[in-house]
Amino acid sequence: FAAKAAKQKLPSIDWTAQLQVDTVFSDQSEENRLAVGNAPNGTDFRRARLGAVGRYQEYYEYRIEMDFALPGRPSFLDVWVGHHNVKYFGTIRVGHFFEPFSLERLSANRFSTFMERGLADAIAPARNTGIAVHNATESQRLMWQYGFFKSGSDNYGDDTGDSPDWAFSHRIVWAPGLDKANTRYLNHFGFAHSIRRPDDRLYSIASTPEIRMSESGGASIPNFVNTGNIPASTVDLINFEMAFVRGPLSFQTEYNYVQVDQINGPRVNFHGAYAFVSWFVTGEHRPYAVAQNKNSRPIGMFGRPIPFTNVLPAPGSTETPSGPGAWELAARWSWLDLNDQNIQGGNLHDLTFGVNWYLNPYTKVQFNYIHPILYKQNFGTSSANFVGMRVNWDF
Amino acid sequence: FAAKAAKQKLPSIDWTAQLQVDTVFSDQSEENRLAVGNAPNGTDFRRARLGAVGRYQEYYEYRIEMDFALPGRPSFLDVWVGHHNVKYFGTIRVGHFFEPFSLERLSANRFSTFMERGLADAIAPARNTGIAVHNATESQRLMWQYGFFKSGSDNYGDDTGDSPDWAFSHRIVWAPGLDKANTRYLNHFGFAHSIRRPDDRLYSIASTPEIRMSESGGASIPNFVNTGNIPASTVDLINFEMAFVRGPLSFQTEYNYVQVDQINGPRVNFHGAYAFVSWFVTGEHRPYAVAQNKNSRPIGMFGRPIPFTNVLPAPGSTETPSGPGAWELAARWSWLDLNDQNIQGGNLHDLTFGVNWYLNPYTKVQFNYIHPILYKQNFGTSSANFVGMRVNWDF
Amino acid sequence: FAAKAAKQKLPSIDWTAQLQVDTVFSDQSEENRLAVGNAPNGTDFRRARLGAVGRYQEYYEYRIEMDFALPGRPSFLDVWVGHHNVKYFGTIRVGHFFEPFSLERLSANRFSTFMERGLADAIAPARNTGIAVHNATESQRLMWQYGFFKSGSDNYGDDTGDSPDWAFSHRIVWAPGLDKANTRYLNHFGFAHSIRRPDDRLYSIASTPEIRMSESGGASIPNFVNTGNIPASTVDLINFEMAFVRGPLSFQTEYNYVQVDQINGPRVNFHGAYAFVSWFVTGEHRPYAVAQNKNSRPIGMFGRPIPFTNVLPAPGSTETPSGPGAWELAARWSWLDLNDQNIQGGNLHDLTFGVNWYLNPYTKVQFNYIHPILYKQNFGTSSANFVGMRVNWDF
Repeated sequence: FAAKAAKQKLPSIDWTAQLQVDTVFSDQSEENRLAVGNAPNGTDFRRARLGAVGRYQEYYEYRIEMDFALPGRPSFLDVWVGHHNVKYFGTIRVGHFFEPFSLERLSANRFSTFMERGLADAIAPARNTGIAVHNATESQRLMWQYGFFKSGSDNYGDDTGDSPDWAFSHRIVWAPGLDKANTRYLNHFGFAHSIRRPDDRLYSIASTPEIRMSESGGASIPNFVNTGNIPASTVDLINFEMAFVRGPLSFQTEYNYVQVDQINGPRVNFHGAYAFVSWFVTGEHRPYAVAQNKNSRPIGMFGRPIPFTNVLPAPGSTETPSGPGAWELAARWSWLDLNDQNIQGGNLHDLTFGVNWYLNPYTKVQFNYIHPILYKQNFGTSSANFVGMRVNWDF
Repeated sequence: FAAKAAKQKLPSIDWTAQLQVDTVFSDQSEENRLAVGNAPNGTDFRRARLGAVGRYQEYYEYRIEMDFALPGRPSFLDVWVGHHNVKYFGTIRVGHFFEPFSLERLSANRFSTFMERGLADAIAPARNTGIAVHNATESQRLMWQYGFFKSGSDNYGDDTGDSPDWAFSHRIVWAPGLDKANTRYLNHFGFAHSIRRPDDRLYSIASTPEIRMSESGGASIPNFVNTGNIPASTVDLINFEMAFVRGPLSFQTEYNYVQVDQINGPRVNFHGAYAFVSWFVTGEHRPYAVAQNKNSRPIGMFGRPIPFTNVLPAPGSTETPSGPGAWELAARWSWLDLNDQNIQGGNLHDLTFGVNWYLNPYTKVQFNYIHPILYKQNFGTSSANFVGMRVNWDF
Repeated sequence: FAAKAAKQKLPSIDWTAQLQVDTVFSDQSEENRLAVGNAPNGTDFRRARLGAVGRYQEYYEYRIEMDFALPGRPSFLDVWVGHHNVKYFGTIRVGHFFEPFSLERLSANRFSTFMERGLADAIAPARNTGIAVHNATESQRLMWQYGFFKSGSDNYGDDTGDSPDWAFSHRIVWAPGLDKANTRYLNHFGFAHSIRRPDDRLYSIASTPEIRMSESGGASIPNFVNTGNIPASTVDLINFEMAFVRGPLSFQTEYNYVQVDQINGPRVNFHGAYAFVSWFVTGEHRPYAVAQNKNSRPIGMFGRPIPFTNVLPAPGSTETPSGPGAWELAARWSWLDLNDQNIQGGNLHDLTFGVNWYLNPYTKVQFNYIHPILYKQNFGTSSANFVGMRVNWDF
């Protein structure tokens, strides 16, 4: 329809793409297999995404991104339009995107230190359809977001029905001493809260052990913990987040809490947390995502690590010298407790060790060793071991 | 495969995209709920489209556009290749696209005055797979189209089987006094006819009350009128269309008629019509789509309204001044009568009032109030009220 | 995520697209209908593909291509990332792509002489998820490929489960006397082998009679030969290929052999072959795909025929003169024998005659007449006739 609006300047269009090919080896104790079912070996596309992103007149921004790797028709990821610099508000977005909750959830998975987010992430809401605002001070040291969402919107952004499901979520981030030009030194503190009426008055939390793999009509890594559907009128989520970067070394931790008002039962609470350290052996750092131009504001999350050197010959390239790429070592502890009163979803601890090799800013090979320790009612304590390998390409 | 055809000039590629996020509030009388079922509230993506369009050597044109919002795998919209300036013919297209029938059906929904097309549109054929020709006089005041289609092609352009289903459709448009450089003053008259052998010898017409919303596996706005499947050998469609633009004021009306030769029953006839007025409070107009260059010919339809001002600051933009955007008020009456002899599909009248706010040429917020009045055998007369809001972004 | 990696040079992105609209007329003898079922007439989109392909720093290459015409969610075609010029190896690719096996299978269907590949192609593996290497001598006269794949990966690149299915495939091609600058004179000899553990220990081969058409939930051209699922521990594939180009005349032939180690039965063998001649009446030739730059290496396959003239006026184009386009005549014999011991899948011979009209390098109209002769146990010998027409647009 470009031609139809002749003489009008068209919105810009840029592309973003992402491929993740995962290979997983599973090893379970017999008790674990009884408690959660069988975990297969295999290879799958964890993500295959393509998106268009652009602007019109500097102030209007849009994003249309689909995932082709999930079962079913292509899933909606970020699909929204927004307007920057609205008086008293900042940026207003309408569409399908992440609710403002949790540092790890909001940071793009393509920049993740580990193959999967920590166990506590199971408590954070997924993308939903709604309207939200984000803004920040000029220094970008204080950032805030709030939004109103349909809490039951599906993977295609739709939510119909007569039960009045919705969610109001907000998040505030403080990054004292933030230097926009250089984020090798960073302090990050955040808090988020969400109040929700669940879709069809049913609420549930479930999680695999920080490794995922599935095939349509085939075997999948099972959930290790799962509350099942809980009839619930209201759900409250609370999040505390903290991160510190000191050059190549970084530390990040979050705590998530959920309170569920059961319809025919007592109020129950669940908890999750994680903490990890990461060290770039080759000296790079985990950069903080700051705003690129005066019209947009950041939301407080991590961005793309850029290696000092790129792997293998790059003759004619005067930008990046050849070298070993970037090497990162990381270790994480995480925890998710879904046991409370009549709900016995399980209590899971994970230890994860990771090695990341960044061949260049857009190609990354990841190795994860994951050791989950599960306590489940009637099954007792059991454990398993997973080794995962990922090739990630994105831009 | 660009590299493989080295030295050859590649076809051009431009992109078109569209997002529509709808929110609907439903209110039905008890009689209406009994007659048609429950109409839910909700929010959904009415459309999420991405398309590639391009040319090769000025004479070859192609278009590949998919919708990601409909249930099922991505639906084929305009997916065709065409050749302009063919002697004696004009433009020849092969692929999946709209049959030549009805002004409102052929005008892109993204430029629609109301959230949904009028009730009579239920009689117009959808996109089908076929071959068609369109051409016009040099002045573009007389335009014609005709084509041969597989009448039963599905949302993916496919149609197999042993019943010989097909359709031949043609349309002629006269726009006396058309000024290609300025369409603020316009007269449009059109006529179309289609003769069809329905797929599997079954034909049906159904319509929601000018508001649509659905969720995969969830609740949807139900059809208010529906013939059900009618065993039929031949179907004839006839369309009369008329539109007048006088600056910010425009008037548009269509009448659709369908005659169905039932296989084991009498010949039945159904009718539909609509008429609407639109007024741009801010002085813009509904532009007519004229051909952009000497190689292509128009088909007679409306195009993209361009606001005189764009909403909110646009510093550095010397093209469009800041201001309130464009505001448009509109009112429509429409009607669809699916009652005849043994077929009692219902008789529906709709009144719709609309307010459109064009923030810029590519962003539009629409409000519709719809009041359907339904007469249905055994259920009598009933009515309902709908309020719809849409955020539309497209280019 | 372009903006997030500011100052870094982004990977390039180019687009490839393909549309194929097929119309098929079927005529079967009564014996044939009994033996294989009914073959419908119809029109369908055989392929509708869109892909992104690009590079980063000359050495990294990626490709993301999806098909929207197959039933189910968009199918993964070539979805991979690769690195050129790796010491001792050449190009290393990870992702979902064709295993190195068979000239006709590896040559892109968009450049095919006939509407469908020959019957023997049913023995060649489809695209799978894996890692592979290809390389060639400086002269590009000797080329080799080898790779390790998940043999049971589905149309979305996924393969999970506890049975250790995999495949190791390799291919070597010799093109004596190859002139990289001009492939109007060409000799091509190739050999490939693949050893495979089939997914879930089940292996099968099936084939339509060199014509395909389907509609979701509708009728399809049935398989004429089909082994059904054979419980098998190991499968060996062998391929011999040969092609000669002498200006407008070309000849191509392949022989495929498969040996299946049945789990509860004897070792069985199946065979297939084809041979065809093609003649460009207008003097063009079938070009061989040679490497475009010093960083990449070819794999030995055919590329895009470029007509000497383009059909219809192209004023202002000084590149290609107007004319009749390219006209190609072709005849093929092919054969697939799936009868051995306890497996009686059928023995099929096909004769195909084709006419191709290339209107320009990117638009092609194909006509095929196909005469299959089938011998099937209990049904005896039967035959059928198919006429297929295709409009192909791709770039």
